[in-house]
Amino acid sequence: METTLEDLTERLIGSYNCCGGINHIDGKNLPSKNAIAEITVDLLRLLFPGFFDEFLIHSSEIHSETLELVGSVLRRLENEVYKSLEYSTPKELENENLKDAAHRLTLKFLGNLPQVRAMLQTDIEAAYEGDPAALSKEEVIVAYPFVEAIAAQRLAHELYLDSVPLIPRIMTEWAHSRTGMDLHPGARIGTHFFVDHCTGTVIGETSVIGNHVKMYQGVGLVAKSLAAGQALRGHKRHPTIQDKVTIYAGATIMGGDTVIGAGSTIGASVFVTSSVPPYSLVIHEAAEAKVIQKRPSGAFELDFQI
Amino acid sequence: METTLEDLTERLIGSYNCCGGINHIDGKNLPSKNAIAEITVDLLRLLFPGFFDEFLIHSSEIHSETLELVGSVLRRLENEVYKSLEYSTPKELENENLKDAAHRLTLKFLGNLPQVRAMLQTDIEAAYEGDPAALSKEEVIVAYPFVEAIAAQRLAHELYLDSVPLIPRIMTEWAHSRTGMDLHPGARIGTHFFVDHCTGTVIGETSVIGNHVKMYQGVGLVAKSLAAGQALRGHKRHPTIQDKVTIYAGATIMGGDTVIGAGSTIGASVFVTSSVPPYSLVIHEAAEAKVIQKRPSGAFELDFQI
Amino acid sequence: METTLEDLTERLIGSYNCCGGINHIDGKNLPSKNAIAEITVDLLRLLFPGFFDEFLIHSSEIHSETLELVGSVLRRLENEVYKSLEYSTPKELENENLKDAAHRLTLKFLGNLPQVRAMLQTDIEAAYEGDPAALSKEEVIVAYPFVEAIAAQRLAHELYLDSVPLIPRIMTEWAHSRTGMDLHPGARIGTHFFVDHCTGTVIGETSVIGNHVKMYQGVGLVAKSLAAGQALRGHKRHPTIQDKVTIYAGATIMGGDTVIGAGSTIGASVFVTSSVPPYSLVIHEAAEAKVIQKRPSGAFELDFQI
Repeated sequence: METTLEDLTERLIGSYNCCGGINHIDGKNLPSKNAIAEITVDLLRLLFPGFFDEFLIHSSEIHSETLELVGSVLRRLENEVYKSLEYSTPKELENENLKDAAHRLTLKFLGNLPQVRAMLQTDIEAAYEGDPAALSKEEVIVAYPFVEAIAAQRLAHELYLDSVPLIPRIMTEWAHSRTGMDLHPGARIGTHFFVDHCTGTVIGETSVIGNHVKMYQGVGLVAKSLAAGQALRGHKRHPTIQDKVTIYAGATIMGGDTVIGAGSTIGASVFVTSSVPPYSLVIHEAAEAKVIQKRPSGAFELDFQI
Repeated sequence: METTLEDLTERLIGSYNCCGGINHIDGKNLPSKNAIAEITVDLLRLLFPGFFDEFLIHSSEIHSETLELVGSVLRRLENEVYKSLEYSTPKELENENLKDAAHRLTLKFLGNLPQVRAMLQTDIEAAYEGDPAALSKEEVIVAYPFVEAIAAQRLAHELYLDSVPLIPRIMTEWAHSRTGMDLHPGARIGTHFFVDHCTGTVIGETSVIGNHVKMYQGVGLVAKSLAAGQALRGHKRHPTIQDKVTIYAGATIMGGDTVIGAGSTIGASVFVTSSVPPYSLVIHEAAEAKVIQKRPSGAFELDFQI
Repeated sequence: METTLEDLTERLIGSYNCCGGINHIDGKNLPSKNAIAEITVDLLRLLFPGFFDEFLIHSSEIHSETLELVGSVLRRLENEVYKSLEYSTPKELENENLKDAAHRLTLKFLGNLPQVRAMLQTDIEAAYEGDPAALSKEEVIVAYPFVEAIAAQRLAHELYLDSVPLIPRIMTEWAHSRTGMDLHPGARIGTHFFVDHCTGTVIGETSVIGNHVKMYQGVGLVAKSLAAGQALRGHKRHPTIQDKVTIYAGATIMGGDTVIGAGSTIGASVFVTSSVPPYSLVIHEAAEAKVIQKRPSGAFELDFQI
């Protein structure tokens, strides 16, 4: 006897009732991942007008276009902020009407966009100065995935500072998916930041990064012991990187007490677990690898056999 | 004399006739990548109702909504399964009508969704317990790319076990593109699995992973010698990871005979090519890197020059 | 007194006037990122007809369908090429009408599609031969992210050779976002190229890669000193990889003078900064990591504490 659609549906609904993982069925509901992705794209349009659109804006229209977009973002973001505050109300808002709080926090956030733009201009400058393959700052904005990642992080960080739950992380994970770089919204990042190539770079929640810091793909600023899990919430678990530090591809820097002194350079694939003084150069003791001569007999015959 | 559109078209069609790389022109046709991406998204909606939608579902509607979505997924997936079986018929189905087989296998697959949900609940639990940055299990579902990756793998693994060609790999590559993590549908993965940050982690086809295993970004469970290529198909080429193992960022574990004993910890960037007993801690002999003092004269002047 | 939408808009427009990062307000305008993404998708459809579509094409329709798609791509790409030439005119085109130049270069580009197809067939062959998990060349095309990445690079490389600004990089960054692999449009890549898993692999602008080269995830072909930044533009900064070289996961090869001799194998996570002769096997001197026995008392209690 064949399974019917009705059977399949009943089994699934039975599973919903017993195993969790359901959102907003007659309960409080989470902010929408899709809505936040769309809002983030519109925030990027406000930060870099004209870069992601297919049609031109003339200066006679810039005021009305901006007014309309700001209004639309305000309305939609306020709604998502309200849902997130209702889902998990921060202590400092317990005595405020949450609709009012959502409106107030969203207005404050949008009022900070000019400062976020000013920070991002320093990042774009750093990217252009640091990469000989960059033709112009415009190319950096229109083509470099780094710009999406750092813009999303700097936006999300503003909401994070105001204790808005969920939305900051959804914003940075949107960028993570598009760029392969995982910048936590909690990280405090100075001016003139640049990560070349992006993929695989991970910067943890409590990292502190100075000005003029440059990184490459696959860098990790990570926590030391993670076995304790949730018990570590709120502690500084990730390193501090002072001004003018360069960190090459694949290097891992670990621990909340680890400080990389100003002007230091961390070599590729190095694993650093304690502080180094300013102007250090940290490389592998045995940076040279062993070279063995193979018999030159046909292409892949003598391939790698460990 | 200018090249015309007609010239360009003739040249391309000439190239189609001689050089391959064409799908379904009067022949058997492959399943559609786009259709499978959309089906996978709808399967995620069935696994986590309400998490990816913008509008609420009330409990009075949950039955009819679920029934409709299950019906739609059944019809579309069955069609793709049929195309993939027709394209490359598994031995065990050679004597069955392929339309019937596609219907039967798709029904079986959908009937297993509650078990897949139960497995995924253990993964979400592990993610929440293991990451101090996680605020709640709901945040894990709505924001963590890991959930998309492991859900796609567990779904694809069901089809892989039933020898459905092509579709499982298209499903996991959809998630790979979104998360940077490449989990092969063939890998056997136990309960309470978690990979933090995801990007760059690669788990090969014949890997076997126990329960409560935790990994970080950039981990590889890979095959030893790949020079033999297609000749190795069907052999166990990837390692076995026993229960309660933790593998830090960038570690590579190689080979089908390699077994990482239960309760072991593999340090960051370690390269393991043979088995280790239970409760081992594997780290680099020379974990400490060399620190050289640079002359503190101006920012980048003394930069890294190898 | 509450901030109004008008206030927010005025502040943003004030920021536009002082801080840059605006595109095409009554000035020259950049090519559109979205338009180029859509054109790239359509170019993939021309390269691999039927692979990404949901509906079949019959051979009676292939001519008219191809003619229409070629015409549409010509018109749209020509428009973007014109914008990019106007934005930053290459020296060799300074005396040509830019609309004519855009038309001429776009026609030339489309006329080269058959050669690009022929190159890509060798890559697909290499992917199929080299990966025991691949069931067929069709599976490689439809499921492997590598195909998108190398197709976008080979297309972009044609435009790069003709000094078209911006568009090549936007094309490869589109693929970078989807695959996690950053192949610069400037890299010269031989036949039968394959990168397994892709994520994290970075190949710089002036890299030269021979035929039958195979790589894994996380490989970097990178520049030696990057402190000089823009001053290095135009120099060969990235390595040369000769024929039949295999480079395992996470290896970094650095510097414009570094040549990896034909038939060599570079082990996982190795860091190579000088040339090696043909048929070399390069591995870590201390490939073996230290194994310490932990006390087997309960799961994570004795976890990694550095």
